[in-house]
Order: sequence, then C-alpha cells, then structure tokens
Amino acid sequence: MGIIVQKYGGSSVATPEKIRRVAERVVNTYKSGNKVVVVVSAMGKTTDTLIDLAKQLHNFPPTREMDLLLSTGEIVSVALLCIAIENLGCEAEGLPGFLAGIRTDSSHTKARICTIDARRILEELKNGKIVVVAGFQGISPEENITTLGRGGSDLTAIAIAGAVKAEKCEIYTDVPGVFTADPNIVPEARIIPIISYREMLEMASAGAKVMQSRAVEFAQKYHIPFVVKSTFADNGGTMVTEVNFKEGAIVSSVTLDEKQSKITFFHVPDRPGVAARIFGALGKENINVDIIVQNVSLQGYTDLSFTVNSAELDKAFKIAKETGNELNCKEVASDSDIAKITVIGLGMMNHPGVAARMFKALADAGINIEMISTSEIKISCIIKKQDGQKALKAVHKEFIE
Amino acid sequence: MGIIVQKYGGSSVATPEKIRRVAERVVNTYKSGNKVVVVVSAMGKTTDTLIDLAKQLHNFPPTREMDLLLSTGEIVSVALLCIAIENLGCEAEGLPGFLAGIRTDSSHTKARICTIDARRILEELKNGKIVVVAGFQGISPEENITTLGRGGSDLTAIAIAGAVKAEKCEIYTDVPGVFTADPNIVPEARIIPIISYREMLEMASAGAKVMQSRAVEFAQKYHIPFVVKSTFADNGGTMVTEVNFKEGAIVSSVTLDEKQSKITFFHVPDRPGVAARIFGALGKENINVDIIVQNVSLQGYTDLSFTVNSAELDKAFKIAKETGNELNCKEVASDSDIAKITVIGLGMMNHPGVAARMFKALADAGINIEMISTSEIKISCIIKKQDGQKALKAVHKEFIE
Repeated sequence: MGIIVQKYGGSSVATPEKIRRVAERVVNTYKSGNKVVVVVSAMGKTTDTLIDLAKQLHNFPPTREMDLLLSTGEIVSVALLCIAIENLGCEAEGLPGFLAGIRTDSSHTKARICTIDARRILEELKNGKIVVVAGFQGISPEENITTLGRGGSDLTAIAIAGAVKAEKCEIYTDVPGVFTADPNIVPEARIIPIISYREMLEMASAGAKVMQSRAVEFAQKYHIPFVVKSTFADNGGTMVTEVNFKEGAIVSSVTLDEKQSKITFFHVPDRPGVAARIFGALGKENINVDIIVQNVSLQGYTDLSFTVNSAELDKAFKIAKETGNELNCKEVASDSDIAKITVIGLGMMNHPGVAARMFKALADAGINIEMISTSEIKISCIIKKQDGQKALKAVHKEFIE
Repeated sequence: MGIIVQKYGGSSVATPEKIRRVAERVVNTYKSGNKVVVVVSAMGKTTDTLIDLAKQLHNFPPTREMDLLLSTGEIVSVALLCIAIENLGCEAEGLPGFLAGIRTDSSHTKARICTIDARRILEELKNGKIVVVAGFQGISPEENITTLGRGGSDLTAIAIAGAVKAEKCEIYTDVPGVFTADPNIVPEARIIPIISYREMLEMASAGAKVMQSRAVEFAQKYHIPFVVKSTFADNGGTMVTEVNFKEGAIVSSVTLDEKQSKITFFHVPDRPGVAARIFGALGKENINVDIIVQNVSLQGYTDLSFTVNSAELDKAFKIAKETGNELNCKEVASDSDIAKITVIGLGMMNHPGVAARMFKALADAGINIEMISTSEIKISCIIKKQDGQKALKAVHKEFIE
C-alpha cells in the first residue's frame, strides 16, 4: 500500500464548500487503498488579510512575529479539512508544521527545510489515519515558528513526499497542468503530459507562474517526481520528473514575461572587473538580474545590457547610474517597454535549428529582436512589449501546434 | 525587579487600534521597571467565527481538530500584539501555549493544566524581552494542541503568574472591577476593592459573569492573588486574594441569576437512598444541580426541590419524571419562572442577623420567597422571576448602599 502526498493550494480550500470537495477527493484516494498525506495552504486571501493587519501596527513588522502570525492561516485549513474528512467517516489527524517534524533554519519568512522527522506522520498513517499537514511552515532550532515564503506549501509537500518515500506526489492547483503557453493568450496551447525539472525551472524563471522554483529545485535535488493537476477535474495533469531523452517535440513550452525592464550601459570601458563592479553593486541591494548581454568590444569600449523585474527598475536604475558615473561610461539608459519571449526544451542545444526557427518566426511576424540570451535548454529574446502576445502566438505556432 | 503578568481579553484586542492601546499599557508597565508577561485571548469574535466555519463542515466537529482550529485565534493576537509592542521600540517574544511550556491533560476543548515549564518565559524575560503568551491553550502528553475551554485565558494568566512567581497578576477586562451588584440593574452598585477567592467563587456560581470558576479555583489552590480591572481606565479594580478577616461590611456583593429553573418532587418517600437515586440519575447525564432543598418529613413523606440551569431543564425534567415514577412519588413539577438572589460575604455565618435582614428586605419589597439555601458565605433565595430586579435593588440597598 503506497503513500500518496496531495497538496491543495489556497484557492482549492477558499470556502467550506471547496474544502468539502477537497475532502471528497482525499477520502476517495484513501478508499482506493492508499495511505494519504495531505498538505494544505491557507484559505484564499487569509495570508493577505493577516499581512494587512500587521501593517496597520508596524511599517516593517518583525519577521519572527510575522511567521507566527502567518502560520495560523494554514493551521485553520488543516483543522477544517480534518473536520470535513471526519464528516465523511474517515479518521484524520491534523498537524501544524512543527508537529509534523518539519525542522527549518532560522531565516524567518524564507526559511529553508533542514530535516523532516517523519515518525509522527508515519505512525499516524500506520494507525489508518489520513494525515493533514500545514504547508509553508516549520520550526527553527531556537524553537520558533518559521515560514518558507510564498509557494512554500509546494515545498512542504515535495519534501514530505521525499521523507516518507511516497509513491506519488500530487500538486493540486487551479489550472489543469503545465501548458505549452499561456492559454489566455494562445488558445491553441496544450497541456504538457511530462516535463523535466530543468524545463520547469526555466519556465519559472521565464515568467510562467506555475510553481515556485524552490519547490522544483528541491524535487530535482532529491529526485522526487510530482504531478501538477487541477483540484476540480479528474483527468489531465503534468508529470514533472527526470527526463533523459525525448522523442518528437524539442520545444516543450513557450513563455512570455511582460514584467521585465532593461538597463543599458553605453560605451563602458571593456576591462576586467567592470561587470563584477556593476553586478556586485546590484547584488548588494538584493536585486535579481535576469538576462545579461554584452557585445564584443570596439576600441576598448563595449555596451552592456541586462534586465530586471520591473518592480525593481527604479532602485536598480539608481544604482546603475551611480556605477556608470564611477566607470566613466557615456550613458546609462532604462526601458520598461519590453517583453521577454522564451522557448524551453531539453536537448535544444543538440538541435541547432531551433534558434534559427525562432528568429525566423519572429521576423515573419514583423517583430524586431532587441536582445538574445541562450542556455542549454532555453532561448530568450527581448522584444518590444507591444509585440509580446503576437510573438507568443507566432512562436507557439512554429514549434507546438 | 518583579514580574507582572497581565491578561487581556478578546474585547481588549478586538481591533488594531485596541491592540495598539494594549501595547502602550504593556510598554508603560515595562518602562516602569517591571518584567512583563502578557497573556491574550483571541480578537473579538474570532473564536465564534471559527466555530461557525467548523459547524458548516460537521454537526459535531471532532474535539481534537476543534482545539487545533481555535488555538489559532490566540496566536494571531499574540503575533499582532508583539508587532505593536515592537513598533513602540521594545522587544517582544510571542509564544503559542506549547512553546510557553503549558502542558495539559488530553481532555480536548476543556483540558486541565498539568504543569508549566516556565524556563523559556524566564529566559526571554532575562533577555529584557516582553513575553506575550497565547491564552487558552497548551499541549497534551500525546503532543496534540489542546484548549482549556471558555475563560481559559484567565486560567493561563493565573497559572503562569504562579509558575514564574509573579509579583502581580492583572486580569484586564471590559469592566472596571467586581461590582457589589450588576450596575446595569443597580445604578448604586460599587466596585469591591478587595474580595476573597471564596466570595468570587460563590459569585460565579450565583450567576455573576465576572470570571470562570476554574481560574479562581486555581488561584485559590496555589495562593495566587490577582486584580480584575478595566483595560481602558487606569484606576479602580478589584483585588482577589485570601482575605482572613474583614472590617465593616459583611456582605460584599449581591447577585441575581435569572437563568435557573426549579423542579419539585411532591410527596416522595422519606427513606435513605432517595436523594442519592434522584441526583445520581441527573449526575449520570452530566446535569449540574444548583440549590437543593428538602423539608422535614411528614408521615414518612417529604417534598424535595432543586434548581438547574434553564438550558438543561427539559433534559433534567424528563429524568426527574422517570425517577419520580420509580419512587412512586405523587407528582413531579417544573417551574422556569424563577430567579435566584444571593448575598455573598465572608464571615456571614458569624453574623446571624444577615439572613433575617435579607428576608425582611425582600418582605418589605412585597416579594415572596419560594426556597432558601445557605452556605458559610452566602444566602440564596428563589423568588418569582418578575421580582428579580426589584429584589436585587432592595437587598443591595439594605446591605451595601
């Protein structure tokens, strides 16, 4: 009898009615002869409501107390789901993170899981109970409640699946799986039945809002396959796992990220240490840089561009201008009117035609490319924001339809 | 530097604005050179909201999960109060019951405190922190979250005060102290400056809604004096302690309980074992009996009356009728149209005139007495419900004004 770990997100448990439906699915899984561990997030907007309360009392609420506060949201979901399961005649055991043996480091609001002592979970399963665990939380070595940051419940589920050697880990969400492109923009987009960890990671960093990178990284590191599927539909879903080879399609998905901005250093001295200086200054302020492009130099000078999340543009641009002055570069410019289109696929580098086909598809659609960046499994192009959706459709058509 | 334990009820922390005011009072106490431990209840109607959610999922939600659910309410208050305290520039440490070392038995929803391991609290105090503890909750030997039942936060505060050997324990509430009578009915009612545990206990069982008996019993058992006062006023308050003698007033308070009902067995055989049979049957069904009166017998028969909480009258009356049949008693009657008026005062029994004065005050007000019951420190009379408020005013005037 295998163990199945199921994770339900906040929108899946937003109301008593939805909790009842989740309970039915859990009980069905149990009655099919499985041992079941369920991980749940806080109901709907609970976390935002709690944050709002805290902000009314402090502009920068202390992180330790924020963790204590936010951890209650998941515990409420745990208790209510247990109550709904018991109403269907099965026995349930609800556990806050600390009782489920989830030990983290002491980085409040973004703690990392150190170990999972799964003895309590395994014991309750042995007693025939459905175990419901609060996602997103644990306890630090100093015995303080910690949280894992946004998306932390996925991480909890995957880590528990690893700790109990689960047969399956199912991440239930409000979409029926991972799509080849955003179906709101590309109606022809399809669900990808199987995808590798690395492609999922590239998709997350390419702007697809499927899952937090940390959960996927954890799954990759500990070889824990999982399925992403819809709470309120029985079929479909995307299996995320190690994929070593693939027949047919090389490109598994196309993503569009409209929340990037570009900063360019014009005519910067091309000597060792310049890039380190620029990105060191940004790193010190915790600004994540996405794509970096530097062209060949001309007479000892070069142009250097990079993209950042638009929300951080002002802060990044201020730092960039200061660094530009110190480096005597001619000009530092910013542009928030851009979008990033990315094709992702394992083994892409062994198929040299992929890049050319992408560039041609964009050219045929009359779209100009401003920057290009490639990795082993992805190609990203920066284009004008207004061309974004047209580009997504064109590239999706080229590779997937 | 002494330790002060302060407890704030749900209405004192019902909104962010009220939490801010509580934080100010706490910080003032701290800055006056005290070590401070604060115990808080859930915000306003939080507990009721959570119960309502649970009832939508199960008619009789399992108690273990109810405890897990309800315990979150106090934790939210703890975190928010800490955040408000830190906003005023002091360091706070918020602790759920289990982290504060509160170990209970396993009686979910009405657990009893077994031990308090105060090491964590004392250590944080030593580090100069204000410690904020979630009231109403603990952890069982099986490592499950438990709650102490309604009014449990008072119990938490008093038990912690005992465990840390506090100099003072202050129970803040929405009334400015313990009154000589309900001020809504008797405008002349005054706050009692000092009262004994035993009088407080009699008041609770006489229907005054000041504090749960369990908290007072605990305080009495472990000799922990405490003060009941208003959150939003600086003066006043009632000290509850061991009082061995008292000058002046003998009667400290007068209470009216309009939620009692009476059951009478008419013409019941007066032989050993009859009372045991009647009250054994009621006890088996967990029905609390308040006053019991049995008159002298006449020709081997007697009449026996007792009162119960009106909410339990139907259940009690059904049992009483069955027992009455078995005992061949002539009739069993019930009456919910009654009220109980009680005068409470230490040393009352050494002042034989008290009872007579009470009966005369009632007679002068034209009120008939149906039943009388006395203990060492109280005299209760059952009267018609319509006479209740008039009786309260008359008796309060006689003894207190």
